[in-house]
Amino acid sequence: MAVKAQVLYDFTAEPGNNELSVQEGEILTVTNQNVGSGWVEARNSRGNVGLVPEDYIEEWDDDSDDGKSTVGYGGSQMEEGGTMQRGGAHSTMKISLNKFPGFSKTPNPEVYLLTKSVAKGNDKLPIYAGEVGPVWLYPQIQLDCVVADPKKGSKMYGLKSYIEYQITPNTTNRPVNHRYKHFDWLYERLVEKFACALPIPCLPDKQVTGRFEEEFIKMRMERLQGWMSRMCRHPVISNSEVLQLFLNYRDEKEWKLGKRKAEKDEFVGVKIFSTIDPELPELDPGQVEQKYEMYSQFTRSMDNSVKELLAVGHLHWKRCTGPLQKEYRQIGKAFQNLSSVFNTSAYPTLSATGKTYEEIAELVAGQPKKDLHFLMETNNEYKGLLGCFPDTIAVHKAAIDKVKEADHLVTMNKISQQDKHIMEKNLSTMSYALQAEMNHFHSNRIYDYNRLMQFYLEEQVKFYETIAEKLKKALGQYTTM
Amino acid sequence: MAVKAQVLYDFTAEPGNNELSVQEGEILTVTNQNVGSGWVEARNSRGNVGLVPEDYIEEWDDDSDDGKSTVGYGGSQMEEGGTMQRGGAHSTMKISLNKFPGFSKTPNPEVYLLTKSVAKGNDKLPIYAGEVGPVWLYPQIQLDCVVADPKKGSKMYGLKSYIEYQITPNTTNRPVNHRYKHFDWLYERLVEKFACALPIPCLPDKQVTGRFEEEFIKMRMERLQGWMSRMCRHPVISNSEVLQLFLNYRDEKEWKLGKRKAEKDEFVGVKIFSTIDPELPELDPGQVEQKYEMYSQFTRSMDNSVKELLAVGHLHWKRCTGPLQKEYRQIGKAFQNLSSVFNTSAYPTLSATGKTYEEIAELVAGQPKKDLHFLMETNNEYKGLLGCFPDTIAVHKAAIDKVKEADHLVTMNKISQQDKHIMEKNLSTMSYALQAEMNHFHSNRIYDYNRLMQFYLEEQVKFYETIAEKLKKALGQYTTM
Repeated sequence: MAVKAQVLYDFTAEPGNNELSVQEGEILTVTNQNVGSGWVEARNSRGNVGLVPEDYIEEWDDDSDDGKSTVGYGGSQMEEGGTMQRGGAHSTMKISLNKFPGFSKTPNPEVYLLTKSVAKGNDKLPIYAGEVGPVWLYPQIQLDCVVADPKKGSKMYGLKSYIEYQITPNTTNRPVNHRYKHFDWLYERLVEKFACALPIPCLPDKQVTGRFEEEFIKMRMERLQGWMSRMCRHPVISNSEVLQLFLNYRDEKEWKLGKRKAEKDEFVGVKIFSTIDPELPELDPGQVEQKYEMYSQFTRSMDNSVKELLAVGHLHWKRCTGPLQKEYRQIGKAFQNLSSVFNTSAYPTLSATGKTYEEIAELVAGQPKKDLHFLMETNNEYKGLLGCFPDTIAVHKAAIDKVKEADHLVTMNKISQQDKHIMEKNLSTMSYALQAEMNHFHSNRIYDYNRLMQFYLEEQVKFYETIAEKLKKALGQYTTM
Repeated sequence: MAVKAQVLYDFTAEPGNNELSVQEGEILTVTNQNVGSGWVEARNSRGNVGLVPEDYIEEWDDDSDDGKSTVGYGGSQMEEGGTMQRGGAHSTMKISLNKFPGFSKTPNPEVYLLTKSVAKGNDKLPIYAGEVGPVWLYPQIQLDCVVADPKKGSKMYGLKSYIEYQITPNTTNRPVNHRYKHFDWLYERLVEKFACALPIPCLPDKQVTGRFEEEFIKMRMERLQGWMSRMCRHPVISNSEVLQLFLNYRDEKEWKLGKRKAEKDEFVGVKIFSTIDPELPELDPGQVEQKYEMYSQFTRSMDNSVKELLAVGHLHWKRCTGPLQKEYRQIGKAFQNLSSVFNTSAYPTLSATGKTYEEIAELVAGQPKKDLHFLMETNNEYKGLLGCFPDTIAVHKAAIDKVKEADHLVTMNKISQQDKHIMEKNLSTMSYALQAEMNHFHSNRIYDYNRLMQFYLEEQVKFYETIAEKLKKALGQYTTM
């Protein structure tokens, strides 16, 4: 079936670039998702085909059972094409949920809502009252790891080759090796186990062509590092058996055994809520629904803002490396040509000014890699995270609806009054889980954006100062005339 | 008859702007010259009609007797439309020559070539050996004037109104008043008298609509100032009776009498050469031709370079006030929107960063008026000057060709051997006039471009430093978090 996409922002094609002008709200048919460099080929309703920036469109859900991978922000900032990140925003979770055998559409919270017992011991996930509200239990020392040293390995007598990364956790300081497919395995386990309660962002996408290209490997490593750090920073995930196994296994045997155990884990899907133990007073369904509305609105707003920033970042990147570079080069050339006309009476200063503008052209074109890159990467990560929330929140909403039905079910004698109380208590637990997770998200967000903006502004200041400095130098040559 | 224009540079239309994509060398039919703001409306051979930047095209001479005013660089830098400068480059002179009763196409230098006598006394224009070669006699004190204080006047009981400018020469320090039509009268006299030997640049164009608009009056005054200063700086023109009259007349009577006298001046057209008196050894026709080739090539090259700079300047102007401003505004908006999503936990610093980028948007859009404006104005002036050279040089070439025929004419007994010698001597005089003029042009050029580039770079440095400063301030707010 053809992938349909809805246009998020107006986009005006540049003539001669094989691009397609599209308008917000328009529905397109994606004809080629593998164009790379942040572009997809699409056909509009009038039959015109052309390239459209990935960030400007999102998959159109005319058939939500489709479960197809969508087009999403990719490595648009890389000139070498083809570093697409898997999935985009909203549809991300659907892919993952499809992988999880228990999920069809939204997982049914009913199984959990009527559960009476709570997990014991190590499996227990407590929630405390923190300064900002309900919070997960944070470890004394924050787990982190370094992903480094990508090495090409091979098996089957060199017939198949792969890249192996070295991951060194700060706890043991002992490196372990993992291939991309191991990360993918870890991702699947985390989705299986936590996705009903926690957003598990996608891994950077697998790439089909040019897998061993240096730039691509570097970029994937950077993104795997970002993903791993985010997992390590999470108080619940960092403490999970499966992540500990991934980071700490001592030999092939321990790894294999651990894998088998993780794959048999029973506390997965909605059952994760039965391991959550909020040491806080029970919330009534009204309070729960209020919180739900607030988070639902917040994640939607932030998702829009992040996409807006990505779209303008994408445009700006294209402008800097395209027309703006060209224009500064032209200015530089024009000054130099004029200076060469003046050659009879020698005018080297004007020629030097021309060269300065050519240098500025390269600075302008090279700048996005220095600052915009990190801004796009961080926002892209957040887009991925925010893309997981609708599904997490949908589970929550389904539970709220179930509890709303409870009165009716009691009247019909389908459940007892006691069952209803259990349902309400469990809904309160789910709400505390969502609140703890949102509070975790908020604190991460402040840290990440604060760091991002400081870095971005520092680089921007350097950029403008460098240009001013260069122009000053060019100006200085005139005074001696 | 429809005005045809040839495309000088490729231009890619921006969709939705009513623009027309054109390619170098393409011939267009100009359908509306009065679009303003540096644009003309034109139709291509396929019948498509749209706007094209004036700088990108020049009049196409399929009928050189046409003598129609052409499209040329105008006040493309003014957002308020309609400040077109009269004529453009090459065809400029043709308009003026048509006004001059003695000229049909290229003035015939024969009248002068056989002239034996040289003007005496005040009318004599000596040429000396300067450091750089033959030079005009420069006055001890360089004449200059200030064009200021444009005032709206009226006549016919207020039925007709006009703008009167105050012109104050540095010699008398006594202001005189002139309307645009007086400037135009002066221009016509100067063309009549000097255009065979000196390039007389056009006046800024008359405007049909919105003549009293403040911005337009300011712009015209600036350009009249530039034109007058250039005339005053010229050693031959500054010393001419007609310019002296224009600057120094004491009352209406003196002005009227002087006007009548100037209109009856006999030493006009090619006769101007008979007033030129080079105190230098006679050049043989071979030397003359060599100089001619050199200047011919130089003026063509410089004309091309100046047009190239104008074209890229035009493009850059459009980019800064158009897409670039829009983009920085979008970046600013995106940061602010993101900050407003974060409102729950208050994130005023990010909002301040957003505002900073909105301010940068306005700086970017406002910058061309600060620096590019002067660059465009100066280059536009030079484009006008260089547009006069082909005709001045054509007179010269016609004289060279006549002298080449002289041997043949002697054989045919049409002229005497002595006549031939007079022709060669007069050709030498013409060559000295051209050399003196080119040397004057060169020294002006060095002065003008040196001043221009210093001014431009100073403003550019300020611009980038201001942005860096603003971003530093935005960055400073983060450290306190």
